[in-house]
Amino acid sequence: MTLVNEVVDEVNEVMALVDETQLVAAEKIIDKNKRIFILGAGRSGLMAKGFAMRLMHIGYSVFVIGETITPSIQTGDVLVSVSGSGKTGSVLDPSKKAKENGVKLVAVTSNANSPLGRIGDATIVVPGATKSGDGVKSIQLLSTLFDQSVHITLDVLCLMLSRRDNISNETAKATHSNME
Amino acid sequence: MTLVNEVVDEVNEVMALVDETQLVAAEKIIDKNKRIFILGAGRSGLMAKGFAMRLMHIGYSVFVIGETITPSIQTGDVLVSVSGSGKTGSVLDPSKKAKENGVKLVAVTSNANSPLGRIGDATIVVPGATKSGDGVKSIQLLSTLFDQSVHITLDVLCLMLSRRDNISNETAKATHSNME
Amino acid sequence: MTLVNEVVDEVNEVMALVDETQLVAAEKIIDKNKRIFILGAGRSGLMAKGFAMRLMHIGYSVFVIGETITPSIQTGDVLVSVSGSGKTGSVLDPSKKAKENGVKLVAVTSNANSPLGRIGDATIVVPGATKSGDGVKSIQLLSTLFDQSVHITLDVLCLMLSRRDNISNETAKATHSNME
Amino acid sequence: MTLVNEVVDEVNEVMALVDETQLVAAEKIIDKNKRIFILGAGRSGLMAKGFAMRLMHIGYSVFVIGETITPSIQTGDVLVSVSGSGKTGSVLDPSKKAKENGVKLVAVTSNANSPLGRIGDATIVVPGATKSGDGVKSIQLLSTLFDQSVHITLDVLCLMLSRRDNISNETAKATHSNME
Repeated sequence: MTLVNEVVDEVNEVMALVDETQLVAAEKIIDKNKRIFILGAGRSGLMAKGFAMRLMHIGYSVFVIGETITPSIQTGDVLVSVSGSGKTGSVLDPSKKAKENGVKLVAVTSNANSPLGRIGDATIVVPGATKSGDGVKSIQLLSTLFDQSVHITLDVLCLMLSRRDNISNETAKATHSNME
Repeated sequence: MTLVNEVVDEVNEVMALVDETQLVAAEKIIDKNKRIFILGAGRSGLMAKGFAMRLMHIGYSVFVIGETITPSIQTGDVLVSVSGSGKTGSVLDPSKKAKENGVKLVAVTSNANSPLGRIGDATIVVPGATKSGDGVKSIQLLSTLFDQSVHITLDVLCLMLSRRDNISNETAKATHSNME
Repeated sequence: MTLVNEVVDEVNEVMALVDETQLVAAEKIIDKNKRIFILGAGRSGLMAKGFAMRLMHIGYSVFVIGETITPSIQTGDVLVSVSGSGKTGSVLDPSKKAKENGVKLVAVTSNANSPLGRIGDATIVVPGATKSGDGVKSIQLLSTLFDQSVHITLDVLCLMLSRRDNISNETAKATHSNME
Repeated sequence: MTLVNEVVDEVNEVMALVDETQLVAAEKIIDKNKRIFILGAGRSGLMAKGFAMRLMHIGYSVFVIGETITPSIQTGDVLVSVSGSGKTGSVLDPSKKAKENGVKLVAVTSNANSPLGRIGDATIVVPGATKSGDGVKSIQLLSTLFDQSVHITLDVLCLMLSRRDNISNETAKATHSNME
């Protein structure tokens, strides 16, 4: 078996464990009339940014925590936090603080029982191997398998949202950055 | 004379050459009902981001070209482009393209006769030394003096905008990121 | 069939078309004694950053074009450029310039015959749907399928490099940012 | 008096209070044979990045906490942390953690007695107004005056370092990103 096949098989194994009812629960919280904030660190953070960018393409008012023009988060806003281990301090601490301020939290993690997993108003479990040892075992380094699977999972969530909102590919294309 | 004094004197010399009527012209273009896009590279780009962040604090709908949630720029939008030399390709090319698409351009540069300076609907000249040799001479490296002076200049523009719009310090504070 | 399954099937279809001999050719260029520069825009750019971060974890001297501490690229350096369409100006133009300056180029694109694909010293073709219409057709928006597949492909390349270089998971873990 | 003059006067007032012996103390810690890590949030973070970029130009091995290719910080490394209030959690907490791990800390703050100010191996006090009310009073919004003054202060430190290390403007220019 080639290395590509081995890696793809791992992704398939994790994706088979993703529970679409959890995506539906998250979909209900991600309301187009609300502001959506996105938080993640490291490679999970890059996947979180990819999700944020696509939400923008399909017409959401979305902000990435830590980027230049991100305002204060307020009661009534939605926060989507991504952490494989569910214990990353720079993700967990602001998520707790947001919850206390009346923000709805979508938690995305490999471990439903992690501190982050437990406080989600909706929690999406993506059980790919992380660097803290959670989830499906992997031949890949650190939390690579989590990153790959969370990427696909959040893209499926975007696809659900775009269908719910009747956003076509052409509409998304018109919103895509034209300064590249 | 101490090194701090020498550097501060350079900044004072450049700032004395900044023409407030150019700031007033830019202020007229930066309309709160329009979307404002910000573009810069390198250290100028960091100053541009600082300007964008403050515009957000005082209630503008502002985006930084190259960040995650920046949508396509459209006819009727405003672009603020910062380049010391006025020749940086990654700033100049998108600025030209935006102009062709009916975007109003505020150009910020050390050189009014540079390619960027010439195409601004308003052009703010900040004649600090740049790495291409324009502007007031400096003991500092590369375009440090331009960066320092453009920083202060854009902050003065923000102050003008906040006064025009009746935004208090308390209002700005409430919008400041609360996830740090 | 569930939506997760439909999306995973698309990824599997693209990954089956990735040619491992192209990865081997890229692996030869990515020399641990050289500086590796990474370039991409939009969501492809996020995938490129994920690749850069993992290269750092396994001990490479790697820089992302556009980030703060990225130095000038010089003869003898390696550039890895990612563009689905192979035509993105902000990726293509610097890639051409780098080639002219004696930099080795690894091109990653959905289209081998695109301007970027044609100039790679090694070109990795990841034929997922892009927003310009190249590659395997997809139910997903814009270049989502390319992003997902390029993510996995670059992770496979990292795995190949880590094995070649005898880097263990524990070694990579010790290099992973500890300030999160 | 024009608005530009009012703002420039504020900057002059703060800069007159910057103590060059504190810069000398910081200069001793910033050793070219060590790895330098830079940390800041919000607009202070942008100024911190500007400092990091210039350190790269003059030949330092420097990393920005939170950027893609930043490795783990280790005993023997140097951390430069910037926070106007000296209380920003995302700056203070990692700074404390780094200190415990044997990292030398240069603290840059408006308030010597703040939590960050107190733990610096060298502390540079830049007493510009911050949004928490420290420092010289200002007509400008939030911590604008701190940002402006810290910008100039860190540039003076860079100038001291470049002179100590005999780095010319031409050498710095050759290291400046050539992909813009």
